[in-house]
Amino acid sequence: MIVKKQDQRFRSGASAVLGPMFLLSFLLSPAPRAQAQQFDAPFLSLEANNRQRWEREDQQVDRKLAALESRFGKKPNIIYILADDVGWGELGSYLGGKLMGRPSETLDQMAAGGMKFLSHYAEPSCTPTRLAILTGRHPVRTGVNTVLWPGGPEHLGLHPEELTVAEVLSDAGYHTAMWGKWHVGDAEMHAPENQGFDFAHYGLFNGAVWFWLDVEGHYKDREIVTGAHPFHDFPGVDEYAERFGIDIAGGYYVGRKGRGRERGKDLTSSKDMEDFEETSIDEITGFIRDKATSDRPFFIYWATYFHQDASSPQKYRLQDGVDFVNNQAAQAGQHDEHMRRLLQTLRDEGIEENTLVVWVSDNGPMDYFWPNGGYTWLRGHKGDVLEGGVRTPAIAHWPGMIEAGQDPIDMIHVVDLFTTAARLAGVKDRLPTDRIIDGIDQTALLVLGEGHGRRDYIFHYSGSQLGAVRMGNFKLLFKGPEKGGIPQADLFNIMRDPREEHAHESTGSMLAYNIPFQYLIRSHLEMKRQFPDRVLAPPPSSER
Amino acid sequence: MIVKKQDQRFRSGASAVLGPMFLLSFLLSPAPRAQAQQFDAPFLSLEANNRQRWEREDQQVDRKLAALESRFGKKPNIIYILADDVGWGELGSYLGGKLMGRPSETLDQMAAGGMKFLSHYAEPSCTPTRLAILTGRHPVRTGVNTVLWPGGPEHLGLHPEELTVAEVLSDAGYHTAMWGKWHVGDAEMHAPENQGFDFAHYGLFNGAVWFWLDVEGHYKDREIVTGAHPFHDFPGVDEYAERFGIDIAGGYYVGRKGRGRERGKDLTSSKDMEDFEETSIDEITGFIRDKATSDRPFFIYWATYFHQDASSPQKYRLQDGVDFVNNQAAQAGQHDEHMRRLLQTLRDEGIEENTLVVWVSDNGPMDYFWPNGGYTWLRGHKGDVLEGGVRTPAIAHWPGMIEAGQDPIDMIHVVDLFTTAARLAGVKDRLPTDRIIDGIDQTALLVLGEGHGRRDYIFHYSGSQLGAVRMGNFKLLFKGPEKGGIPQADLFNIMRDPREEHAHESTGSMLAYNIPFQYLIRSHLEMKRQFPDRVLAPPPSSER
Repeated sequence: MIVKKQDQRFRSGASAVLGPMFLLSFLLSPAPRAQAQQFDAPFLSLEANNRQRWEREDQQVDRKLAALESRFGKKPNIIYILADDVGWGELGSYLGGKLMGRPSETLDQMAAGGMKFLSHYAEPSCTPTRLAILTGRHPVRTGVNTVLWPGGPEHLGLHPEELTVAEVLSDAGYHTAMWGKWHVGDAEMHAPENQGFDFAHYGLFNGAVWFWLDVEGHYKDREIVTGAHPFHDFPGVDEYAERFGIDIAGGYYVGRKGRGRERGKDLTSSKDMEDFEETSIDEITGFIRDKATSDRPFFIYWATYFHQDASSPQKYRLQDGVDFVNNQAAQAGQHDEHMRRLLQTLRDEGIEENTLVVWVSDNGPMDYFWPNGGYTWLRGHKGDVLEGGVRTPAIAHWPGMIEAGQDPIDMIHVVDLFTTAARLAGVKDRLPTDRIIDGIDQTALLVLGEGHGRRDYIFHYSGSQLGAVRMGNFKLLFKGPEKGGIPQADLFNIMRDPREEHAHESTGSMLAYNIPFQYLIRSHLEMKRQFPDRVLAPPPSSER
Repeated sequence: MIVKKQDQRFRSGASAVLGPMFLLSFLLSPAPRAQAQQFDAPFLSLEANNRQRWEREDQQVDRKLAALESRFGKKPNIIYILADDVGWGELGSYLGGKLMGRPSETLDQMAAGGMKFLSHYAEPSCTPTRLAILTGRHPVRTGVNTVLWPGGPEHLGLHPEELTVAEVLSDAGYHTAMWGKWHVGDAEMHAPENQGFDFAHYGLFNGAVWFWLDVEGHYKDREIVTGAHPFHDFPGVDEYAERFGIDIAGGYYVGRKGRGRERGKDLTSSKDMEDFEETSIDEITGFIRDKATSDRPFFIYWATYFHQDASSPQKYRLQDGVDFVNNQAAQAGQHDEHMRRLLQTLRDEGIEENTLVVWVSDNGPMDYFWPNGGYTWLRGHKGDVLEGGVRTPAIAHWPGMIEAGQDPIDMIHVVDLFTTAARLAGVKDRLPTDRIIDGIDQTALLVLGEGHGRRDYIFHYSGSQLGAVRMGNFKLLFKGPEKGGIPQADLFNIMRDPREEHAHESTGSMLAYNIPFQYLIRSHLEMKRQFPDRVLAPPPSSER
């Protein structure tokens, strides 16, 4: 079992208090299966019902992985790319692309040459999805229920006792590196170099919040007639940061495992953000070339600032067919070129067939940025547990292992990337059993194709609250607190109505639909009592 | 110039009254260009600005057509297939298909092997689109502004003086035949055998209105708990038809040019509808085989009942992955199999490369039928001039002439199919100039590919009212009557916001956006004064 190396400097008070509770929950839990991660209850029952089939499929998968390993002499490389606020429907392969003035040629080719997921889900916002991909756990379990903002409480973030995919893969012998937007805590204890990455070049948030109000063209549509911006005298964030003595981290860091971090370049203009993207892809391709011939595989986590929206690369705005007023469309052009370079480097180094590349978006589009920003065909947007908030584009590419041209409708969640990585690295059976890991091993879906997904449910948390529950084609969406003991929820048939326009209210004649969901939710909550959510902040002293 | 053979039996009073008015308008119109159809004003200015480029392209197109003609010894065959209420987003190639439980394998292959239009537009409802495809004119010009219902006024319909695509192609030597849902008038003067078709096997409406309330499973979702239907005692349509002595035409007709029509099979159950679809494809493939070796080309207009929604073929409901409660999904399976047979027959006969097949839907999905019926990613549905009502899936297939795998964003409207057919038949220059023909020759788009479309505007009529106007990427959507002289309209950037969620109101600071639209609309209205809309019914005697 991988045990997280605990740096006592970072051990928080809350965690110390919770120690005995974890022990107690461990004793109360059902006898843990030896050498297996602790899954949530709905998965355990699904697994029990499919054990024989899955075992046969796993043998197939294992044979394919073994053949690959003997060919390349090491486990496969893994590259996870996390884009920012790209909606379901924005890429060409999702019926967007040129139609929306956002050409995405490389990503479309990547989809055509691999697997495009039609039912990939993330958490509804930025920090939560980053925690989910890193820990394989719904962020509510890690104690973080919110997007972290510069100036917020410093103790909130990726707790040192959480186990990250980088730590898992490090332990399995991988080189590990990350670039981009960290955004899971500002303190050093949260930082990537202390969370399993050998190397990291990153920003904490985006360092650009104050640019949102003054980037050229950003509000062009609203200003075109009057020339005036309604918030032109809004105080600068930096001014308030100075007043309260808060470091708003308007720049980048370079961190190295065991050697701490150094402040890198400052971020003083949107051009700096564009340059950071260029620097990232330069360093990433350099890293790939450097590690291609190593006897150890590598893991890259690239949390690109693509679609951060504060930047608007001139070079890509000027291309034919780009919506030139939309910063995001210009950034899409920049990112697409970077993706081309990344995939080309893998080909040039002859390691394309030993490298799984997964590209996902962290949540739906952020409507606040209109007329900039992303777009989705679905209802809702970033922050919602409606499909528009949580269903995001996702593409997997691995020639020889993933058959080209696939577009499975199998459900997959961003937490699954954690567990799938552990499987590929051959260390899935060494994951800890003292906590629930929500991520499901989806290697069979990747390698055997559509219909081999291993998920028939999703818990969509909205902050600390369960906002919606998916079960097969159906989704129960909570609308608010119970009224007189009757749940207030809408039921949707997501297959028939992916835009969630035709609700069956769960009250009245539709009440019966609730019952299967109650079973599912109850099993989830019972297991939560055994493995409670981490508490990072003291509870409010409302109880006398 | 093709002159419509006027059958005096069918000459209506209204038309007789209008005769002198047409003559007058002809005299008032600008000098008609010799041997050319009369286009609307916005097209004439677009053409003037692109004349040289278009002439060069037309020479390219002509060379390709000439080479094809010398290979096959005749003009190309043309097959137009009109589906019913299929929304933009419902087929697999439009991000639907299996995701929505509506597999569309053949249509997806047809799209992959040809051209999928991302910006194809129809009229917002059933009868209007049928008139548009048949006449190349916005139906408002033909005097029909409404969907025709059984029991409605008999004089409403496709006026004998309208020139149909079947008449144009007949005149050019084509065999002409139609199958399916006619729905442009119940009287014999409106019937296909009197409108240019050598043969027609058709229903007038759908003959199935009364099934909508009792087809097994149709309202399953709403009845599952109570077992009761809120309209279970609604009077039967047939009962009222009898009372008022109206023939509601609950059956099919077989018509032959010059020989009138015979009543065919009755329609007494949803099974009869399914059978009619089977009969249609049997006859269509038979017709193709029969005419394949003729020295004359053929034209087929198949207005399939696919998605009429009242039928639910058991065979296709039972397939894996089909949303079995949704009649339409089952019909999609049936239609997809029929499309497979049609395309296979063309291949078997060796005429695939000499046959243009165009498949379009007549309007967006009809929400009233929920949980049955179609679906769209766009806002609005059948009946709306919102994108969800008028943007529909459309696929063109012509191996050797249309390059495979294309998905142009060029705008195309269903009226364009009329003029494009005339061009392919070599008789475009013989179209009449005594009326506006809205259809634009889009052969260059088909043959030369994306970017060669010839349309930058669309007038979206809602009944007799101009409901919205498209100009480039922008769309002005009228919300209601002017208030104090200020137009009430929303402006959308359709490229950036295809779902029309972010309106710029044309009042206030956005008023300036109206001005270019005013120019466009004024030129359209001025030409309408020269070529007035046909009037089929006497005006209401509200003027004393």
